[in-house]
Amino acid sequence: MIRLASFSLAVASALLALPAAAQFAKPEDAVKYRQSAMFIQSTHFGRIAAMANGRVPYDPAAAVANAEIVAMISQRPWAAYGPGTEGGKAKPEIWKEQAKFQEYGDKLMADTAKLVTAAKAGNIDALKAAVGPVGGTCKACHDAFRKD
Amino acid sequence: MIRLASFSLAVASALLALPAAAQFAKPEDAVKYRQSAMFIQSTHFGRIAAMANGRVPYDPAAAVANAEIVAMISQRPWAAYGPGTEGGKAKPEIWKEQAKFQEYGDKLMADTAKLVTAAKAGNIDALKAAVGPVGGTCKACHDAFRKD
Repeated sequence: MIRLASFSLAVASALLALPAAAQFAKPEDAVKYRQSAMFIQSTHFGRIAAMANGRVPYDPAAAVANAEIVAMISQRPWAAYGPGTEGGKAKPEIWKEQAKFQEYGDKLMADTAKLVTAAKAGNIDALKAAVGPVGGTCKACHDAFRKD
Repeated sequence: MIRLASFSLAVASALLALPAAAQFAKPEDAVKYRQSAMFIQSTHFGRIAAMANGRVPYDPAAAVANAEIVAMISQRPWAAYGPGTEGGKAKPEIWKEQAKFQEYGDKLMADTAKLVTAAKAGNIDALKAAVGPVGGTCKACHDAFRKD
């Protein structure tokens, strides 16, 4: 609970408290930063999903290593959606529906924390069960807030 | 020492053991991945350097948070320089002088681990002393292996 609370606080402070200028020299840097974080995230989540889907052999240690990177990097994008950083693939709705956007961010961080726990359980069924929610949250947020 | 040894092992296995195809669907993905990691790294190191240089006020908690991200992300780029992933800003020398490149990677990871320790000491002088080596390693490696 403490961990989830600090996640929410991180998202809230990132979105609401700090002007973009305090974090990024230029709005383009914020766009590049969040796209960088999303790409790293999708790379490592993709490796886990490939195991869960049977496209590559299940490797418990690799699943843990990748899950830990996903959980860590899933905390990063949100601070890069500050005021004045519209652009890239981000729909303007992000800045109009901040509570909903923040809810997805919080959910992703909670889902990826559970992915780490599931990976550490060391069995493919636990991993599969945790992959679904992460993928679902990615998709739901992209459907709502990412341009095609 | 165990930590440094595992860092070296990570770099060695990334560079020497795995074909790029095992990690990235396309060589362009490896290029994008390492550029993403480098950008996130430079963003957070820049925030610490700004404190060390007096351009922004020293914030001990922010220094620790940024240093931890730098140390974590500094472990990421190396696996994305596998065989067949030439391109981007990477000079071909990376694949011809792998021992030297690996040495820089190892040094950066060691330097950024020390940056975390220094940030946790909670005084600006310790931080300044640890910022120099990280910046120096970035520059030395870029001079040798990054295109202008």
